[in-house]
This record gives sequence, C-alpha cells and structure tokens, in this order.
Amino acid sequence: MNCHTISTDTPSIGEAKIPSPIQKGENGLNVYDFVSDDDRVLLDVSITNLVSKIKDGETIPSFEKAGPRNKIYFDPSKLKCALVTCGGLCPGLNDIIRSIVLGLYYGYNVRHIFGIRYGLQGFIPKYGHDIVDLTPGLVVNILEMGGSILGSSRGPQSIDEIVDSLERMNICILFMVGGDGTIMAASKIAEIITQRGLNISIVAIPKTIDNDIFMVSRSFGFDTAVELATKAIQGAHNEAEAYPNGIGLIKLMGRYSGFIAATAALAEQNVNFVLIPEIDFDLAGSGGLLKALEKRLHLRGHAVIVVAEGAGQKLFECEKQECDESGNIRPSDIGMFLKDAITTYFNEKDIETSLKYIDPSYMIRSLPSNANDSVFCSFLGRNAVHAGMTGKTKLLIGHWNDHFVHIPLDASAGKRKQVEPRGTLWRSVLEATGQGPLKNEN
Amino acid sequence: MNCHTISTDTPSIGEAKIPSPIQKGENGLNVYDFVSDDDRVLLDVSITNLVSKIKDGETIPSFEKAGPRNKIYFDPSKLKCALVTCGGLCPGLNDIIRSIVLGLYYGYNVRHIFGIRYGLQGFIPKYGHDIVDLTPGLVVNILEMGGSILGSSRGPQSIDEIVDSLERMNICILFMVGGDGTIMAASKIAEIITQRGLNISIVAIPKTIDNDIFMVSRSFGFDTAVELATKAIQGAHNEAEAYPNGIGLIKLMGRYSGFIAATAALAEQNVNFVLIPEIDFDLAGSGGLLKALEKRLHLRGHAVIVVAEGAGQKLFECEKQECDESGNIRPSDIGMFLKDAITTYFNEKDIETSLKYIDPSYMIRSLPSNANDSVFCSFLGRNAVHAGMTGKTKLLIGHWNDHFVHIPLDASAGKRKQVEPRGTLWRSVLEATGQGPLKNEN
Amino acid sequence: MNCHTISTDTPSIGEAKIPSPIQKGENGLNVYDFVSDDDRVLLDVSITNLVSKIKDGETIPSFEKAGPRNKIYFDPSKLKCALVTCGGLCPGLNDIIRSIVLGLYYGYNVRHIFGIRYGLQGFIPKYGHDIVDLTPGLVVNILEMGGSILGSSRGPQSIDEIVDSLERMNICILFMVGGDGTIMAASKIAEIITQRGLNISIVAIPKTIDNDIFMVSRSFGFDTAVELATKAIQGAHNEAEAYPNGIGLIKLMGRYSGFIAATAALAEQNVNFVLIPEIDFDLAGSGGLLKALEKRLHLRGHAVIVVAEGAGQKLFECEKQECDESGNIRPSDIGMFLKDAITTYFNEKDIETSLKYIDPSYMIRSLPSNANDSVFCSFLGRNAVHAGMTGKTKLLIGHWNDHFVHIPLDASAGKRKQVEPRGTLWRSVLEATGQGPLKNEN
Amino acid sequence: MNCHTISTDTPSIGEAKIPSPIQKGENGLNVYDFVSDDDRVLLDVSITNLVSKIKDGETIPSFEKAGPRNKIYFDPSKLKCALVTCGGLCPGLNDIIRSIVLGLYYGYNVRHIFGIRYGLQGFIPKYGHDIVDLTPGLVVNILEMGGSILGSSRGPQSIDEIVDSLERMNICILFMVGGDGTIMAASKIAEIITQRGLNISIVAIPKTIDNDIFMVSRSFGFDTAVELATKAIQGAHNEAEAYPNGIGLIKLMGRYSGFIAATAALAEQNVNFVLIPEIDFDLAGSGGLLKALEKRLHLRGHAVIVVAEGAGQKLFECEKQECDESGNIRPSDIGMFLKDAITTYFNEKDIETSLKYIDPSYMIRSLPSNANDSVFCSFLGRNAVHAGMTGKTKLLIGHWNDHFVHIPLDASAGKRKQVEPRGTLWRSVLEATGQGPLKNEN
Repeated sequence: MNCHTISTDTPSIGEAKIPSPIQKGENGLNVYDFVSDDDRVLLDVSITNLVSKIKDGETIPSFEKAGPRNKIYFDPSKLKCALVTCGGLCPGLNDIIRSIVLGLYYGYNVRHIFGIRYGLQGFIPKYGHDIVDLTPGLVVNILEMGGSILGSSRGPQSIDEIVDSLERMNICILFMVGGDGTIMAASKIAEIITQRGLNISIVAIPKTIDNDIFMVSRSFGFDTAVELATKAIQGAHNEAEAYPNGIGLIKLMGRYSGFIAATAALAEQNVNFVLIPEIDFDLAGSGGLLKALEKRLHLRGHAVIVVAEGAGQKLFECEKQECDESGNIRPSDIGMFLKDAITTYFNEKDIETSLKYIDPSYMIRSLPSNANDSVFCSFLGRNAVHAGMTGKTKLLIGHWNDHFVHIPLDASAGKRKQVEPRGTLWRSVLEATGQGPLKNEN
Repeated sequence: MNCHTISTDTPSIGEAKIPSPIQKGENGLNVYDFVSDDDRVLLDVSITNLVSKIKDGETIPSFEKAGPRNKIYFDPSKLKCALVTCGGLCPGLNDIIRSIVLGLYYGYNVRHIFGIRYGLQGFIPKYGHDIVDLTPGLVVNILEMGGSILGSSRGPQSIDEIVDSLERMNICILFMVGGDGTIMAASKIAEIITQRGLNISIVAIPKTIDNDIFMVSRSFGFDTAVELATKAIQGAHNEAEAYPNGIGLIKLMGRYSGFIAATAALAEQNVNFVLIPEIDFDLAGSGGLLKALEKRLHLRGHAVIVVAEGAGQKLFECEKQECDESGNIRPSDIGMFLKDAITTYFNEKDIETSLKYIDPSYMIRSLPSNANDSVFCSFLGRNAVHAGMTGKTKLLIGHWNDHFVHIPLDASAGKRKQVEPRGTLWRSVLEATGQGPLKNEN
Repeated sequence: MNCHTISTDTPSIGEAKIPSPIQKGENGLNVYDFVSDDDRVLLDVSITNLVSKIKDGETIPSFEKAGPRNKIYFDPSKLKCALVTCGGLCPGLNDIIRSIVLGLYYGYNVRHIFGIRYGLQGFIPKYGHDIVDLTPGLVVNILEMGGSILGSSRGPQSIDEIVDSLERMNICILFMVGGDGTIMAASKIAEIITQRGLNISIVAIPKTIDNDIFMVSRSFGFDTAVELATKAIQGAHNEAEAYPNGIGLIKLMGRYSGFIAATAALAEQNVNFVLIPEIDFDLAGSGGLLKALEKRLHLRGHAVIVVAEGAGQKLFECEKQECDESGNIRPSDIGMFLKDAITTYFNEKDIETSLKYIDPSYMIRSLPSNANDSVFCSFLGRNAVHAGMTGKTKLLIGHWNDHFVHIPLDASAGKRKQVEPRGTLWRSVLEATGQGPLKNEN
Repeated sequence: MNCHTISTDTPSIGEAKIPSPIQKGENGLNVYDFVSDDDRVLLDVSITNLVSKIKDGETIPSFEKAGPRNKIYFDPSKLKCALVTCGGLCPGLNDIIRSIVLGLYYGYNVRHIFGIRYGLQGFIPKYGHDIVDLTPGLVVNILEMGGSILGSSRGPQSIDEIVDSLERMNICILFMVGGDGTIMAASKIAEIITQRGLNISIVAIPKTIDNDIFMVSRSFGFDTAVELATKAIQGAHNEAEAYPNGIGLIKLMGRYSGFIAATAALAEQNVNFVLIPEIDFDLAGSGGLLKALEKRLHLRGHAVIVVAEGAGQKLFECEKQECDESGNIRPSDIGMFLKDAITTYFNEKDIETSLKYIDPSYMIRSLPSNANDSVFCSFLGRNAVHAGMTGKTKLLIGHWNDHFVHIPLDASAGKRKQVEPRGTLWRSVLEATGQGPLKNEN
C-alpha cells in the first residue's frame, strides 16, 4: 500500500505539526485562504485565567483550526477512502455522507469512495454485507432522507479484523461517524494501524444526538432533535391542560446528559419539571417530585414533566443493570417507572388525575436534519475531508467557540460533556419551570 | 323557560318536517339561497338499487341537507347557548368552538354563549368547574392551538343532573362535541328533555379521530392524524432500513376501526404489514404474521408493521377485559404484545433483529388541525349553528356523499363504521403492502 | 401492433358497456370484489329531482365507477405503456407516477413502462428528449419530492406526430396527466387513433391545482396548495397587524376559479376581503373595494386581502390580452395592479399605510404532496391503471360524490368548475370576511 | 424620578466597572453562580495574535459577559420598565417580549412593564397609540405567533419627544429591540438622558434577520429565516428541473450582507449561483453571469440562482437611489431586474427557457421562530433583563464565541458584519455551487 507519501499527522492540544509535500493544484476555484496548522482556537475564552497563565509561561490549551491546508498528503488519483456510520440513528447522517463524498469527488478529484454498510459489521466478512460505491449521483439527493443510506449497527467488532479489511481494500482514509463507542474504536483502530506500520488516516465525526461529546460545543442532529422534542412537549401540554389534573409526561433522549430535555424545555416554556441525569432528585418525601407535583396540580390543575432517559437512575439501584450491544449501560426505563409511580401515588390519595405518556425517541432519531443541522453537517463533512487529505489522523472534527477544530481522539474518548448544575442553561431551566430543588432536606 | 317559540324538530331518515315562524332579517350579507328541509341527500348513490326501489315504491333512504333555513325558531336576543367538548382530544376541537361561537355571534347576533369546562363534568355541581363566557375575542385566535380551550373529560355523568343544569342556566341550544359515548349521552339528554317537556335543542358534532362514526363519511381530525401518522411511519421505515433485519413497529389509533392505520399506510407506502381490528390474522403458524415477517426479513432485510390499537384482540381472549372511564372496552396493548412476541420469536430462532417501537398517539391527538381539517371544522360548526337556530334537535352534523347533512342521533348512536374487508381501501392496502392473508389454513 | 384483443371502450354518461375476454389470474392477492361496469354513481344526489325524473322515464345521469374489472384486455407480458405529465407543476405528480408504475408492475405484471420527458415535447423527435424506463426501483422513493421526475412543458404539439410516436413505440396505453389543454389534446389524440384504426387506450388524470375541472369534485394537489396558502395568509396577517394601517395582500392561484382563495380564506379566518374571478367587484366608488378597505382600516387598523390571479380582469379590459404557451389567456397581473392602486389611493388621501405583497405561487406548485393528497393520488393512479388494463379509453379518472369514477373526456374538456356565487362555499366566505358586495349601486 | 440608586453603567471593550448596592434577595431559586463584571470573553480566539499582544502589554479586546449579577440597582417594587420593538418583522420578536416580561416579573418581581405600540411612534403623542400593560398572562402563549404583539413601525422619531415620554411615564429601564437604525436611536436617546441628568437604562437587543450586526456572531430569527429560505430554494429547484432549460430565481433578504443567501444555499445544495452584496459580479461579457448561466443550461438543462436583495447594485448606478422611511438606502429590485435581463438575453439568442421567480421575503419575516431561535431569544431576553436590573446602560446583548455578552452601543452602531470573501462560508458556497468568479477579465 503506497498511497501515502509521508506519515500521517496527529493533532494535539497545544502543539502543531508542519505539513509539507504535494502542493494543491492552482485551479480557479481555490483562490481562498488556506488554514495553517498554527491557526489555533483557544479552549477557554475567559480573559482572566488567560493573562495569568501567559505571564506564568504556562501552556495555553488550544485546538488546531479545521479547514483546507495548502499541502495534501495523498495522491487523489490513486486514493481509496472509506466511510462508515455507526450506532443509533441521528438526524444529519446523510448530510455528512453527502458532504464527504462531494468534498472528496469535486474538491480533491478522489474517485474511489467506499461506503461500508451497517456500521462496523460491514468490515467483518462473516456478516456478508456489500460495499457501496459512493458517487455524487448516489448522494446528491439524500438530504431530505432521514436515517443513513449506509445503514448502521450497534456493538463492537474485532479491531484486528477491521484493520485487515482496510488493508485488503487498500483504504488510506477512513471516515468514521459515530458516538462514544465509535470514537473509542477509532482510537484502537489507529493504534493497530501504527503497530502494523500502515499509513491510514482515521478521521472521526462525533455523533451524539444528546450533544454530550466532551470538548465539542455542538453536535449534529441535536438542533433537529430539540425541534421535534418541543412538538412532543406541546402535545403533552395540550393533553395536560385539557383534563382535570392533567399530567403530561415526556421521556426524551439523554442517557448521561440532559441537554435535549433542558433545551427543549426552554424552547417550549410550558414545562413544570425537568429531570436530567446530572441533577439528583427525590421522588417521595416532603421535598420530592411527587409532593411538588401534587402542589402544582392543586394550584394550577395541570402539569408537564420532561424526563431525560438517564435521569433518576438511583431509583433502580437494587435492580440489575443492563447493557446494550455497544457495551453502554442501558438505563432502566425511568419514563414507565415515573408513569407508574405517579399514577399509584395519586390513586392512593384518591385524587383523580389524567396522565398521558409520550416517548418520541425513535420519531426524533429517524428525522431528516433541519436546515441548521444540514449546514452544520456540510461543514463537518468538508472539514473531515480537508483533514484527511492533508494526512492528519487520530482526530475528530469538533466545534468550539464558533470555530471548527481538530480534536485529538484521545482528548475526547471516554469523557462526556454534561449540563453544568450551576451554569446558565440549568439556571434558565430553573427560572422557566420554577421547579425548585426537588430534594428532601437531610 | 320560554325562549322557544315552537317545539323543536327531529330530522329522520326518509322524512322531512316543514319549519315556519320568525323570518330571518333581510340584511345585505344574507343574499344567499337558504336550504329547504326538502333538500335531501341520497344515502346510496348506486343507481341500480335506486331505480328498482323507486319502481317498487320503496322509501329511498336520504338525509336532510344541512345549512341555513329561511326561518329561525329562537329569539337571538334572549337565547342562551352552551357548548361542551367531551372525551379524548382530537385535532380541530378549537376550530369547532371558534366556528360555533362566531357563527352564533355574527351570524345570528346571539350574545349568551356558555362554554362548559372539562366535558360533562362541567354540568355537575360537585366538580366545581367554572362556566366560561365565550366571546369572539376569546376564540378568534385559537385556530393554531391543539387541544380544547374548554378542556374535556371521559366517563358518563348523571343525565338528570345535566338536564337540571341546562334548566338552571336557561340553555336553549346545547352543542355537544364528542364520540360514541357522547352521542349516546346526547340521545339520553334529549329524551329527558322531552320527558320534562322542555324546549332545548341538542345538536351534536361527532368526534372520532378514528373516523368510525356510522353514516358519517369523514370526521374531523382524521386527516391531521393521518398526516402525523405518516411521519411516524417514515421514522419507523428509516430505523428499519438502517439496521440488519431492522423492524419498525408503529401502533396507531383505531380501537374498533383501522381507518388511520390503513390510510396512513397508503400515504407512506413503505409499510409491509397493516393489522386492523376488522381483519383477523394469526400470529403463529406457517401462515401467520411471524412467519411472514421472517420471510420478508430474509428477502429484503427490513420490515415495517403498522398495527391499530384494536387489532388482534383475540390474542388476549383469556385475559380479563378492561374498560376505560367512558365505559368503552379498553383493548389490551397489542403494540407492546407484538413487540415482545416478535423479539421472542427471533431470539428463539437466534436471528439477530433490531426492533424499534413507536407509539405516537398522544402527539397526534393533541395536534392543532391542518388546513383541510380547519375548513372542514368551520363548516361543521356553522352547520351546527344553523341546525340549532332553526330549532332542530336530536341530530348530529354529518358528511355524506360530499354534502353536510343532518343525521338523527338514533341512526348513528351505538353503531360503527368499519373498513370493508372487500372494499377499495383494504384492497389498496393489500396491493400496497403485498402482505397476503396472514392466516393459517384450516 | 397487436396487443389489443378487442377494441377499446369509451365510457359515457348514462350508459355502460359490458367487457369480456382475458380472465384475470386467480392469485392469492386478488380475492376482492371486482367492479362491474353496471356500478354507476349518480351525478346528482338530490332526491327530489331524481324521483320525478325516474317517474318520467328520463335518463338518470351517472358515472361508471372506477376500479378493477374481472376481465383485462391486454396481454401484460407484451404490453407497452407510456406516461406523460404536462403543464404547470402541481403537488402529487410524483405520487401519481409512482402509483401508476407500481400498479402496472405489481398489480398486472406489466414490464414495459415508458416515461415521456418534458410533457408533450417528449413525443416530438426534434426536441431530442430521452425516454425513461420506469421501474419500481426508480419510483419507490419519489413520494417526498416535489415537481415531476419526468419533467413537463407547456404548449401544444402536433397531434399527428404524437400518434406517430405512439405507433413507433408500440404503446397500447397512454396515461396523460395534465390540465385543460392536456385533456383536449387527449381527446384529439384519441380521435386520430380511431381514425387510424389503432387500438390504443388514452387514460387521463386531470391536473389542476385550481380544482376547476368540470364534473370532478376534487383534484389532486389542491389540498396541499391550500395548506401552504394559509401559511402565506398567516404571514400577511402578521405583517398587517404589526403596522399602523397595515395591509397584507396575497395573490393566490386561480385563473378562472377562486377555490384556492376561498378555501384558504376559510382555513385561516383572518381574511377581510377575498376577490375571485367568479364574483365581480368594483375598485373605485362608494361601494368599491378601496372605500371598503379604507373603512376597515379606520375601524380596525389593519386588513388582509386575498386575490385570485384571475379576479378583477375587467379592470384590464382596455389592455391587450396575452396568451401563455398553452394557448390559455394569461390574466393581467391583478396582484401588482391592486398593490399600486391601493398605494396610490391612500397616498392621495395622505393616509399612511404599510402594504406587504406576497405571491407564493411557485413555492406552492413545487411542493411535495401532503398525506391527504398522497393517498388521493395513489387511488387516482391505481384506478387509471385498472381502467387502462380493462381496455377503456377516452376517459379521465374523476372523483364524484365520494367515489372514483370514469368521466368521458368529451364531457369534461373545455368546461370548467367554478365557485357558485350563491352556494355554501362562497356564503361561508362572506360570513367569515364580512366583506359585503363590493359593488357600487347603479 | 428617583428609582435609580446609583448612576448607570456603560460597559466598554477592555474595561469593566464594579457594581454595588441592593443585594439580591436570597431566595431558594437563585442558588446559582452570579456573573462578575470581570468575567470577560475574548474578541479574538486566535492564540497567535493573543500571545504577542499580551507580551507587548497591549490591551486585549474582550466583552463583558452577560448574566445575573449579585447586586441590583433598581428597587423592583417601584420600578417601571418599557419595551419597544422597531423596524421590519423578524421571527422571535414575541419570544423576546415574553422572555423580558417573565424575566422581570418572576425573576425580579417587577410589576410595571409597559409595552410601547408600533415602534418609536408609540412614544410620540400625536400618533395616539395606546400603551399596553404587559403581564405574564398576556405573553405566556405568544411563542407560536409570528410578528410582534406590540407592533412596529419604520422611520425615525424625535429623540427629545421620546425622552420626554420616558420621563413622563417614569420609565427607568427601556428595552429596545431593533436593527441598525434603532441601535443608533438608542445611542442618541442614551445621550440625551445623560445630558438631562436622568437615570434611565437603555438596553438594546439587536434585530436583523440578515445577521449583519457588527460584533454579533448570531442574531435571532436568522436560523428560522434560513429554514424557510431553503424551502423556497427547493421549490425553485423543482420548477427548474421540471422544464427544458428551467431556471429558478429566488430573491432572499440581505440588503448589505449575504448571510441568508449563502447559508440557505449550503443547506439546500441544489444552487448553482449565489449573488450577494459583498461579492461583485458582472452580468454581461464572456465571464459574466449570463454567459455562465447559458453554459450551465447547455450542460445540465436547468439552473438555480439565489440573489440577495442588495446584490449587484452597481447595475443600477445610473438610477436615482431611493431611501426607505428608516433612512436606509433602498436597493433597486435586483430580483425583477435579473428576471428581465435573463429572459431578454435568452429570447435574443432564441433559446427557449422557463424562468420561475420566487420572492418569499414577507412569508419569512412574519414566521414564528423555530425551536432554536426560541431558545436563543429566551436567553437574549433574560440577559437583557439581568443587564437592565443591574443598572447597566448603553449596551446591546450580543453573542460572541458561544457566550452572551454586553456590547457597548457605540461599538456596534453604524457598522456591519459581512460575508468574508476569503472566509470559510463563502469558500464553501463556491465549492458547493462551482459558480466561479463571474467576472470578466480586465
């Protein structure tokens, strides 16, 4: 395999490598400024910390800026690339596929782009999935389709078999779109590649509808998800308001982070209780949710509760924990649990209520992206292509302080962004709901 | 109570009464044709039956046409009307409230329009619900709101107390919007009114998101419901297509009639199995659903199943039947049942599948009406007002052969429209899905 | 050319032919009731006229019911069909293409289905347009696309060249989707076919976003059009309400019939003036629109006007009339005319106003169909296929009194459905707007 | 007037004042971190410039962070606030009104909140507009309404009369939502307030659907605007693709900055030419738009052009420039101009084309905000309230590097953000359209 001219390049926080060979062709289209690896975006925009750090000679954490470089490392005429989408569906997958394919094809004249079917399974011979030849004609009209034209799957696969497969197909750049598990797999794949002395770039695009990727301020699909989540909340609100002691209960996505629940509650503004994984709450007791709900019903006659799927897991502590196929701990179903607990509570008190339960998760995950996410995805895809073509590897394309950046895989893998209990978002939720602490005093 | 000038008038199939007194004011706006009670719409538009019936001197079943009459029976300056919405939410309730209020206020100069809160509960003193004074200002901007500004409730209330309440408030026309149970209640209320010798008109507007009112070709909210149901199916299809052996399972409304499931399946066209209450199917066995699903997965790798909530109830025959508060038999949850049955079936066969379950019911019920339903509701409301003002009673406003008509309460109550197993709709579903009979041979 | 086994069959009002040969295969799927040509739908559902006509022995006007027959006339294994979409875009074209292709392919095992590109131009060699081979794979996912995958064009083409082309390609059924001009072309094509002694079925599906096809109660795309039209009206209303003396002026489609304008005004309900081709109005003078608008602004501070493109054409009488390429008289632009006239009127009176003009026509025409139109189109396409396969010709698929019917081309061509000035629709518009006659007294 | 306890505070770039008096009540809700005026957000996140500047002892430009302070300056029990919305409509106005009213009412217990009707006109007695008493009940359900419940107007008013009016009503905080002209008016009002020695805070929220406010990375309504703009482009694309030599021409908002046109083109991706004010282009000549369009039609048979309203103004240089009421130069209508120029060009060359022109401006401006803009507006409103309550003045609430910040009025007024010709956005547009420079060589 000899498509590489030099070894690939891993970006790191606070440090930049200088690229070299193959000058990009001077065609009419490309009369724009290239990005240099010295263009770096600060991690922390707060000036106070910064000045003191600089004075103390400390390293200032920063990210390499994403974008086209004035050198490329691969010979496009021979280059073979592959693209895989992994894990749960998320609005925007097809936008990213399209953007990568068009970026490679028209931006760099790459002609061999392989689509791996059904996530990591597609690399493993025993599953027998086909490889798709990705061409502009195939992807040009997929923007308005939800899902992923490549398909996906959950769960880990043998890293060695994946690298075998890359070698066999002579892939030099692998674009991986996926969540936490995929980023960890990408990291391991890159390791084996190094061990085997291969020159294969691994470029990841983080996918999490929950918006919980560490060091990534925004992830694609989140905005689309919030949009439909607010419709679900509106529905729940309409149901709640229409019946005596009406209760609307909506379970939203958010296994470890409550961004969707919190943001949708702010968009809709008719929510009275938001429960997220980051903030502990009590169910029973004078300060708990049930009592607070009873007060709210007494006062206003109806209530809306939004619960993220990972909230209140302490309530299941005695139960055996389940894992999904990707190895993530699967939270017990807090939505059904709350539905039963609330119904039982009021039945016992002989208070007539009317509870409606809405779980829009799969309707949301399978949506096509809205315009905002489409644009965002087109930038993610384009920047992934630029990063790959310039020979960079072991990175993911992130977004930080309004800039697209390269984030080292290792800096993000295994960590998680969460709603800050004392930050602006949660403060605004508390102001909007007036829900109070929902905790018993000790 | 003396707002009536003559006794009220019940329409009947095949027979028409002649109205008389109070000539409607000759103002500039009303230079249109009034409808006469002799304007009748045929029940059956098939010519063959008709000619032979007429020749044999048989009665030709027909409905009184709805619309403004050239006489009104009530003195608008003294008239008090009431309006109540009952049962489950349905897109268009607010459109009907608006249309009735504006029709009474501007069309007939009625100034006393009472909104009864929370369905039939609102008539019963012990609940303590307020009465709302309905004015144009209050209703003019409610078109884009889902739910019902009056609220609703399920379950029967004492008919005598309801009539007491009507007497106490001096109501002369009661507009009731509701489903099967409400139509039966309307019928009983009208009976007691007759027994007590009162002159109160009862005008019903049938509400059933399932579109299953007998002798009513179309009910409001149905079109809006189908629209979102197709989105849910699209989502399920995207999920199914994206995973190896992906299965999308959508439960839609339809307790006794599968119109929503069948119609949405035709709108979306990516459905492989439609299960409705009217058509029996087997689950197990060589001709059953599970085997057919397995074949489909083997052939195409993914499948979408739409199930109406009332389908497959024979599968629960041993279980105790539950009733909801309105006295309807509540079907056992076929959605969750199928989800479990399918998962178990394939697990036992060691076939990896990925099933996603979507239940959009409450998101659908709580929607605002789309444009089509809005227009339809504005006609329903207007025609209800015309019927009430002309002193008619014991009727519901229906839609038949493209005309709005008066249907006697007794003709519709307790019966149900269903999908015709050998008719065009179901035939088209069979053609679109290719699902076969799903029955074991005997 | 010998694919026909017997000559084709033209339906007529009040008369039915009896079909015969090739029995349809007895496969598992088709265990439903066939439609007989004796199944006829009454034109007029009013019972009074009917009884007297029958007693007098008069013919009762009725339509042949559409649907599958138990005999087919063509040998599917050899049959070649063609499909063409003509004239302006309309939501649902792709639904119909899909429905016809799937209906022919799966319902009757037809394997040669040609798509004619760019309307009637596609038949004429000098334009050099390709023919498209229509397969299920090509059409299965086009439901969510607006426009027409076959393209279209306006304007007449040589009927003889079209028939030459049909002969050359051995087409036995031609499906034509188009408006008034297309229906007339279909009629002429059928005539030439008869003259040449050919056996080619011509089946038309009427396309008019304006819903103005004679004897067709509903045309596809209309419902979708009304839906977006109401959004435009909402926008205009928001603009009008937000400024002192704000005026929202929306021009909607409707060259000869104001159904879209009238229906959208009922759906949105914030409209103060609706102007349609069927109802004359004066602009100047004490009873005219400008004076009425001034009164409305004085009273309420804002106003919304909806004008159909064909309204008020008398105002242009002195100007030379233009025709579009299809030979239709093109109405002068009443929207821009009113915009200028209103602005001038209030400027001269020194009254400050803020007029916003919205013309959403091409945004509407190019929409994908909503769920309701999708279902409707799927029935139209299916019934067109059934009609063609059973050897019928010179007909269009219509919808009358809630049934799909066969309408002879000659019965509909050259005539037009219009809003009835004294009917329910217009009466409701007058009630909803309170706009008065807008005419000066003589 | 003595509601102020100390003089108000103007934020400035690179400098921070220290607030003091009235400690905010320690209630259960407010257990979150307050923001200190020392929390500042860097203007430039590029690390290279930064380090050298710090080493050289230069001032580092930065903004004060927005958010609640631990001191407030006004006594809420006596405080009177006013709120005005000015200029053209923009999605999100009602969200901001709601957020400010609820923030003042529930966050700070302010009870006197006045809504000024119809923009700055509302301050001027001669117009006779009412003042609206803004309460939670009035604003709680306005999220889904487009427009502004307060109304708006264009054009300047006497600054002295405005300040007279503020004095007369005892207003201590004025919230102004508006564009460029409004920000300049706010600046002048604040000046007169200082001259008169009054203590009135002026807090502005910048409104520009064009997203062209200087030093503000994102303005509300922009995202919603792009969303509908993409629908218009889709429509134009459908129309273009459906006809031989079909051309879709869409005029979008963007008087001086082409952000909407450029972003919508990226979201939709079927655009071939984007014309914006920032980038000069030639119409005629071998390198001009018309020739490029001809080539595109020759090659692909259809084309889509998106033009911002302020593009190509050099083509009108000989014409007299018009100004709108707000004193802005009104661009000549490039949309109609291009429509005519293109039609003439191809007519002269005898090439048949089909051009469809779409101008969705007022449908876009009058939309309700989407979920994303709703959340954004709720933060803007909340932060405006925090800024006002802490006694700050002469500022606008901006968004920079992912943080809400205080921007001094003077820093932003009279300047404009524009699409950077060599930046990422425009580069991506060039890549997506492949449109080339559209310039003749000299």
